[in-house]
Amino acid sequence: MLGLMMQTPLLLSSILMHAARSFPDVEIVSRTPDKPDHITSYSGLLERSSRLANALDSIGIKPGDRVATLAWNSYRHLELYFGISGMGAVCHTINPRLFVDQIIYIINHAEDAVVFFDLAFIDLVHSLMPQCPTVEAWIYLGEAGDAKIVGAKGFPSYEGFLSGCSEAYAWPEFDENTACGLCYTSGTTGNPKGVLYSHRSAVLHSCAAALPDACRISLDDTVALVSPMFHAMSWGMPYCATATGSKLVMAGQNVDGESLHRLFEDHGVTFAGGVPTVWLGYVRYLQSAGVKPTTLNRALIGGTACPASLMETLQDEYGVEVLHGWGMTETSPLATISKPLRKHMTSSRAERRSRQVKQGRALFGVEIGIRDGNNRKLPHDGKAVGDLVVRGPWIARAYYKMPESERADGWFFTGDVVTIDSDGYMQVTDRSKDVIKSGGEWISSIELENLAMAHPEIVEAAVIGIAHPKWDERPLVLAVRRQGARLEAQDLLTFYEGKIAKWWMPDDVLFVDELPHGATGKVLKTKLRELYGNRDSA
Amino acid sequence: MLGLMMQTPLLLSSILMHAARSFPDVEIVSRTPDKPDHITSYSGLLERSSRLANALDSIGIKPGDRVATLAWNSYRHLELYFGISGMGAVCHTINPRLFVDQIIYIINHAEDAVVFFDLAFIDLVHSLMPQCPTVEAWIYLGEAGDAKIVGAKGFPSYEGFLSGCSEAYAWPEFDENTACGLCYTSGTTGNPKGVLYSHRSAVLHSCAAALPDACRISLDDTVALVSPMFHAMSWGMPYCATATGSKLVMAGQNVDGESLHRLFEDHGVTFAGGVPTVWLGYVRYLQSAGVKPTTLNRALIGGTACPASLMETLQDEYGVEVLHGWGMTETSPLATISKPLRKHMTSSRAERRSRQVKQGRALFGVEIGIRDGNNRKLPHDGKAVGDLVVRGPWIARAYYKMPESERADGWFFTGDVVTIDSDGYMQVTDRSKDVIKSGGEWISSIELENLAMAHPEIVEAAVIGIAHPKWDERPLVLAVRRQGARLEAQDLLTFYEGKIAKWWMPDDVLFVDELPHGATGKVLKTKLRELYGNRDSA
Ligand SMILES: Nc1ncnc2c1ncn2[C@@H]1O[C@H](COP(=O)(O)O)[C@@H](O)[C@H]1O
Repeated sequence: MLGLMMQTPLLLSSILMHAARSFPDVEIVSRTPDKPDHITSYSGLLERSSRLANALDSIGIKPGDRVATLAWNSYRHLELYFGISGMGAVCHTINPRLFVDQIIYIINHAEDAVVFFDLAFIDLVHSLMPQCPTVEAWIYLGEAGDAKIVGAKGFPSYEGFLSGCSEAYAWPEFDENTACGLCYTSGTTGNPKGVLYSHRSAVLHSCAAALPDACRISLDDTVALVSPMFHAMSWGMPYCATATGSKLVMAGQNVDGESLHRLFEDHGVTFAGGVPTVWLGYVRYLQSAGVKPTTLNRALIGGTACPASLMETLQDEYGVEVLHGWGMTETSPLATISKPLRKHMTSSRAERRSRQVKQGRALFGVEIGIRDGNNRKLPHDGKAVGDLVVRGPWIARAYYKMPESERADGWFFTGDVVTIDSDGYMQVTDRSKDVIKSGGEWISSIELENLAMAHPEIVEAAVIGIAHPKWDERPLVLAVRRQGARLEAQDLLTFYEGKIAKWWMPDDVLFVDELPHGATGKVLKTKLRELYGNRDSA
Repeated sequence: MLGLMMQTPLLLSSILMHAARSFPDVEIVSRTPDKPDHITSYSGLLERSSRLANALDSIGIKPGDRVATLAWNSYRHLELYFGISGMGAVCHTINPRLFVDQIIYIINHAEDAVVFFDLAFIDLVHSLMPQCPTVEAWIYLGEAGDAKIVGAKGFPSYEGFLSGCSEAYAWPEFDENTACGLCYTSGTTGNPKGVLYSHRSAVLHSCAAALPDACRISLDDTVALVSPMFHAMSWGMPYCATATGSKLVMAGQNVDGESLHRLFEDHGVTFAGGVPTVWLGYVRYLQSAGVKPTTLNRALIGGTACPASLMETLQDEYGVEVLHGWGMTETSPLATISKPLRKHMTSSRAERRSRQVKQGRALFGVEIGIRDGNNRKLPHDGKAVGDLVVRGPWIARAYYKMPESERADGWFFTGDVVTIDSDGYMQVTDRSKDVIKSGGEWISSIELENLAMAHPEIVEAAVIGIAHPKWDERPLVLAVRRQGARLEAQDLLTFYEGKIAKWWMPDDVLFVDELPHGATGKVLKTKLRELYGNRDSA
């Protein structure tokens, strides 16, 4: 028997309209280089998203069409999020840091009908255009006048496109499972794969992410969008902040430590999410400039394993609570978060530290499990190590146009190697492709990295497996020293002693000037393996 | 085009399993008169709910069957919530304070197959039994031994029913729109009407209620279930607390001020929800005993208009933040809540007070509007007064077995008369049936009541319209004086002067020893109108 409750669908347009009704004058700030901050509000967002939807209608965009963005975080990008998805089309956010060939592949695979781009990407667009036959319009995110400056003459401008369009738009009601966004994730092998979010998944994820035991987002918050809007929809934060009526601050292109600090201080930011590299840059700036954050009180850190030292600095020196989260493009992305349980209130500092480097417990709505190589369930005892599997309403079922990627058992296999303890705390020991297999056993590259980064003279470290004739693979540490440090390889190895099993001891340490980072700020281990993986170890 | 996210349904069994996985050892405490507190945990709840589901299976209960409860708040009632709904049957919570005839009507209308009852209701059950032919089993919530004490011999006991049943149960996955609970709301006219909640509505409501800008429920909380589990599923709090892993404290039958204070102090309660009468009793006890709450930090108040003085006492004298909410059985129940916006941070005390007596802004997910007598939309300007309409995924679409109650326009008409301002703050001025119509204009009975209760000598007040030959109706105040007070009718009328329009001035004030309260703790205006409504006013 079915209940007799309303069938109101969960739609992104409802989030937008809720914000315009309940928080009409709450500010949305966008920082762009060389210009004063742009300020609008949720009622402004509704107005302009409505104009955009009318404009898209007028050029024949239909529900289900893919409309792409190639842009940094800004109010216009936010309008694209709501305008495109709200009318029933699919907002496809392209990562501009991918290789040109990957972008071409993605646009053609998605069959994008329109691409909206920042003028910063004009050269990129010129190289894409001849290769992307499905795109009927390339529209730059600016005023008609901006074009002349940078030579985008001939392209229509976003403001021109919107001008003359009505501010009234009747947002259609449709199935909440309708696709709202498309985001390609670039595996290390093969072509990028598209994750096709639905309105339902986006709304449920926003709600779960805002909960007190997750990111605790409220109307008292000022949320900075630091993680790029082309990376898993900026971790869902644009939707989450709009739904709760937080003040929104869009970081734009510059997310170095100094820029972030200025931005946070100028606008009273209380919450931001970013990858460890971004937070490392922020902390390094605070330290070198001898300044402190005055309004920031929470930092969501995820996307790659977070060194304990970074968490401690943020918490103990700057009073910023660290929320260590885990997720993937395929999980919308927030799936687990590390928050102490009430029984941990009396934990020692060391216990707190060792718990916080774990990736945390499943958000309400998400279920996690571990499988061995034969797809058998492993126990949640904090010891058994295996493949992490996930399921829930905001987890991908299959990749776009890859029906064969759908699994019959209903779980998503993450490719992460983890343990889960009896309170549900999950800890990533490795990406399955980064695991170091030595003499038939596994060595966790993440644990070795975290230890290295706990050394006061080390700024960043990555550990890869290098070929070994007897043991198959042995660990090699690649590390960036703090400026002026005089640490030698042997010192770091000595530092490891007593902290790890003997056979985990890295075979060598190489100091480098910097580590290569991918498009979303993560260390590119593929690149490191290319460069160092075949170095003889003996 | 549909998205490619998992179709995991939103089910109450997922809440239960999430709690058992993530908060296995968090406590669930139940207080019963004359016995030590009963303590279990979320893993215990899962175990026993599973045994219950197996037991119901064994007597042939099928998905969709209605299984009723006639009980106070306790761990067994909580097991019934999850066990019955989790297996796909409908948990029908009966309000034992209704008239026997109403209960008989309800059981027959619902066609309940089983009734689980507290031994306290044994006499009631005896009078119901002959009149309720659909009920195949009456099972009392106790041990086999308990029966002898109170003469329920012959009835099966709950513990006997569960014993021998397996603790393993494979909770079925089904459509999230499946009915999970049934709650009859007793209108003042006609028969009670059944609201049929769905798993989807219950899960979404829990999530929205837990959000930081609503009740802010987290795993750090100890939530007391004070509002009865037969009143709109105890305001959804059993689900909400389980989903977030809060410690749960079930108040049982005694919710007088002293019992509540003891309960809160004994178990470190941080949050509880209740009607104003309950909170009035609590505050009166604190005052007379000269004690203060040491752990309670939030009180959700709703169900009927809340006097400003009560809110102020709780906040200013006892440091308890008041969350003023509005809802109905038909709205799951939480639909609006009064929380200051960030621009209100600098408000004066008077402004804060006048905003807090409002019922607040729509929760994320709920939409509210006002209609005039011709079903035309009225503006949200804080002035236009009309019928409140609501919609959203946890609002009733129709009543059980009353298909004619479903409206084509998709809105639910609440029967409350309200204003809504430009920030979305809704204020109830009356129930439409309580509005006092004087000379063709409306007088708000709630405003007159709130003013009366702001008088330091008045404990509780109700205002009704009494027949008047010239003006149709005129206001009459019925008030309970503080013990020992020497206030006279004229004093109160003088107190009104300057605070209301002249023509709103009540015609008279009658002091009574107490006001009649209905089954859910609200003042029974029907009763007052019966007693005093035809009194000549002139
Ligand atoms: N905060 C509140 N202020 C005034 N009236 C309220 C409030 N909350 C609930 N009510 C009344 O209670 C009714 C619902 O009753 P019930 O379904 O029995 O819970 C609503 O229609 C309102 O008239």
